[in-house]
Amino acid sequence: MSSSATAADPGATPGVFRIGVLGRGTVGGAFAELVVEHADRIQRITGLRPEVSGVLSRDSEPGAFERILASCDLIAELIGGIEPARTYVLAAMRAGKHVVTANKQLLSQYGDELFATAGEHGVQLRFEGAVAGVVPVVRVLQESLAGARIERVHGIVNGTTNYILSEMARLGVTFEAALSEAQSLGYAEADPTDDVDGADAAAKMAIIARLAFGAPVRLDQVRYEGIRRITPDDMSYARELGLALKLIGTAERVGEALSVRVHPAFLYPGHPLASIGGPFNAVTVESDAITEITMSGPGAGGPQTATAVLGDVVSAMIPPASAPEEMIELPLAADVVSGFYLHLEVADESGVLAEVAQVLSNHDVSVKSVVQRGLGNQARLVMVTHPVLESQFFAATEEISGLEALRAPPRAIRVIEEEF
Amino acid sequence: MSSSATAADPGATPGVFRIGVLGRGTVGGAFAELVVEHADRIQRITGLRPEVSGVLSRDSEPGAFERILASCDLIAELIGGIEPARTYVLAAMRAGKHVVTANKQLLSQYGDELFATAGEHGVQLRFEGAVAGVVPVVRVLQESLAGARIERVHGIVNGTTNYILSEMARLGVTFEAALSEAQSLGYAEADPTDDVDGADAAAKMAIIARLAFGAPVRLDQVRYEGIRRITPDDMSYARELGLALKLIGTAERVGEALSVRVHPAFLYPGHPLASIGGPFNAVTVESDAITEITMSGPGAGGPQTATAVLGDVVSAMIPPASAPEEMIELPLAADVVSGFYLHLEVADESGVLAEVAQVLSNHDVSVKSVVQRGLGNQARLVMVTHPVLESQFFAATEEISGLEALRAPPRAIRVIEEEF
Repeated sequence: MSSSATAADPGATPGVFRIGVLGRGTVGGAFAELVVEHADRIQRITGLRPEVSGVLSRDSEPGAFERILASCDLIAELIGGIEPARTYVLAAMRAGKHVVTANKQLLSQYGDELFATAGEHGVQLRFEGAVAGVVPVVRVLQESLAGARIERVHGIVNGTTNYILSEMARLGVTFEAALSEAQSLGYAEADPTDDVDGADAAAKMAIIARLAFGAPVRLDQVRYEGIRRITPDDMSYARELGLALKLIGTAERVGEALSVRVHPAFLYPGHPLASIGGPFNAVTVESDAITEITMSGPGAGGPQTATAVLGDVVSAMIPPASAPEEMIELPLAADVVSGFYLHLEVADESGVLAEVAQVLSNHDVSVKSVVQRGLGNQARLVMVTHPVLESQFFAATEEISGLEALRAPPRAIRVIEEEF
Repeated sequence: MSSSATAADPGATPGVFRIGVLGRGTVGGAFAELVVEHADRIQRITGLRPEVSGVLSRDSEPGAFERILASCDLIAELIGGIEPARTYVLAAMRAGKHVVTANKQLLSQYGDELFATAGEHGVQLRFEGAVAGVVPVVRVLQESLAGARIERVHGIVNGTTNYILSEMARLGVTFEAALSEAQSLGYAEADPTDDVDGADAAAKMAIIARLAFGAPVRLDQVRYEGIRRITPDDMSYARELGLALKLIGTAERVGEALSVRVHPAFLYPGHPLASIGGPFNAVTVESDAITEITMSGPGAGGPQTATAVLGDVVSAMIPPASAPEEMIELPLAADVVSGFYLHLEVADESGVLAEVAQVLSNHDVSVKSVVQRGLGNQARLVMVTHPVLESQFFAATEEISGLEALRAPPRAIRVIEEEF
């Protein structure tokens, strides 16, 4: 067996599969080491010996990319960001080289262009490392579940926020305290904006939605919110109600449309994502035929991403180029159904609960459980609703926020129930 | 893109990938329906339209297998058992056809012969459905983790026993009661021997070990025990000690050797398999580079296995034949390290605990926690040990069983601790 690129290139050494690496950072360095370490085993699996034939760094002289490209069978793009990664990846595919990348920004913003180019030039574009590190979400959605109609994907796809929420739940500390601990342990960056505001998870969910539904979902179609507003108080009610609070990405069919979104959500303890703690990632795929499968593991770190990239390289060494799946246009759903946790600070007067309940009932929001606690002349009313259209629920909370008895704006967090 | 088999066969319809199905049972029927249902999507992914070109059943006339084989690109073997499945599968590969099978008996007993034949004839042998249904264990071990040195795999690979143990834990009932409930719900067969005695899990662990370590492990090299001896009392202590009791398959490196085994084991609550309840399967793969990844989902049922088989067919439609990995001989380890739960019924006399502790200490068995309960003139002593070589532990329990104060034979169950 041989790769088509190898066979076509007169400068190639027989039996060697040459990898051009773009980027000399943590992932690039770890990847180059893994190639050496596992070359024997990969040769046994694929019949070809992998070798790093060139590495592009910021200090490379002009023309270095072109030289690396000319003498490789595959480009591993480990630079990150949009440019120059996009230019390099497109040039590589147009030159007939397979591409493996861990670049979620690029895929979530320029997916259409990348997949179309891969298809036109008959090369593979693989990107397991862009979603959940070595947790095999991409491979499972593309191959294992090719024979299943996927209804919904739920994911914890950002390790930083999962670590922060786990620590808030475990220690009762504030968001700020947990963030600063995460930063000191290397689980959060100095500027944590992309992680804690949900943008990183949104990019990954755009990629997941594209694979799960064969629809061209872009990052700007994913609505997202982060975890800055979560309080220790929410965590204490969560414990009381038996719920776990996570930053959840959802991609689901809603009738003939799709909804892709990221927001904090409470999970019932039976939910397969409820027990995922620390800086881990996990994804649950639901389909009528298979009920559900869940995959979990460490999120993107240098060694995990490098391992994922090498797994993709091995897969690319085995088959010839396969055409990427054609896309189907699916509209995005404007409104979805969810349960809600609703937290109200109210005057401790008789009749307030009745008043709130009346507003909820007017909007067909049905209450599942209520916890009421007095605090001097003020009371705290926490309730969990049955699933309801989000638009109905928010109309109800808007009306509630106008009630005279309210002492602070209503706070709402979604609740995800086990359906199986 | 086209399959080499299709191209070579003059009777083939261009653009069609023909699947010969062996077996007309639950899985075979569900599979044939899935092919029709997902033909459009699979054509978009692979460029070829899948069709069931023939089905072999017990009532087929003589010569039917040969006719089905001659006019197909791939054989899906869904008969189960050793013969005639083995003869058919070997004949198919020798005729240059890819084979997808969900047959764990065949793979765990005749793996060497099957892999060698696939390699000689340049065809694919795929078998995701033979291990954990649609939970993508095979694909992940073969491809995603090709760049990782796997240290250990822990699996709950039998849904029947996991359901029984979950019900025993939840309701406090006996093994017999939980088994009969499982039978009435269709989670256990009328003859549950293969499941409850661990033989089914052992066959799956032999397949997993072969993939994880590239070593030719056979079923007869896997030592196994089942769950018949587990009592409601064990479950009550488990709750008290914060442990979950599961039937766990283990495949691990022990120095330069391997150990592959199946036995009941207690898991600490942080273990990724501790929260897997009901008739589910789950597998955790540990490797230094990636820490661990866990996959879980419904075990083998008709629809799940059929989906897994179709996923394998889709993978086989994409690449050309890949040579199976060459095997490395790794010896099997005779002795492994484990923590233990030790349950002793003793005379309620002073000095008994000291006597037991002395014996344990003589064998270098170190005790981590003890629960002692009096029961009239008899006491129950339950302890959990630190990890120790199994041979040392069993030497200690043999000596303990000879103590005069013992009122019943000692009972021991392994304990698996979180290492990360």
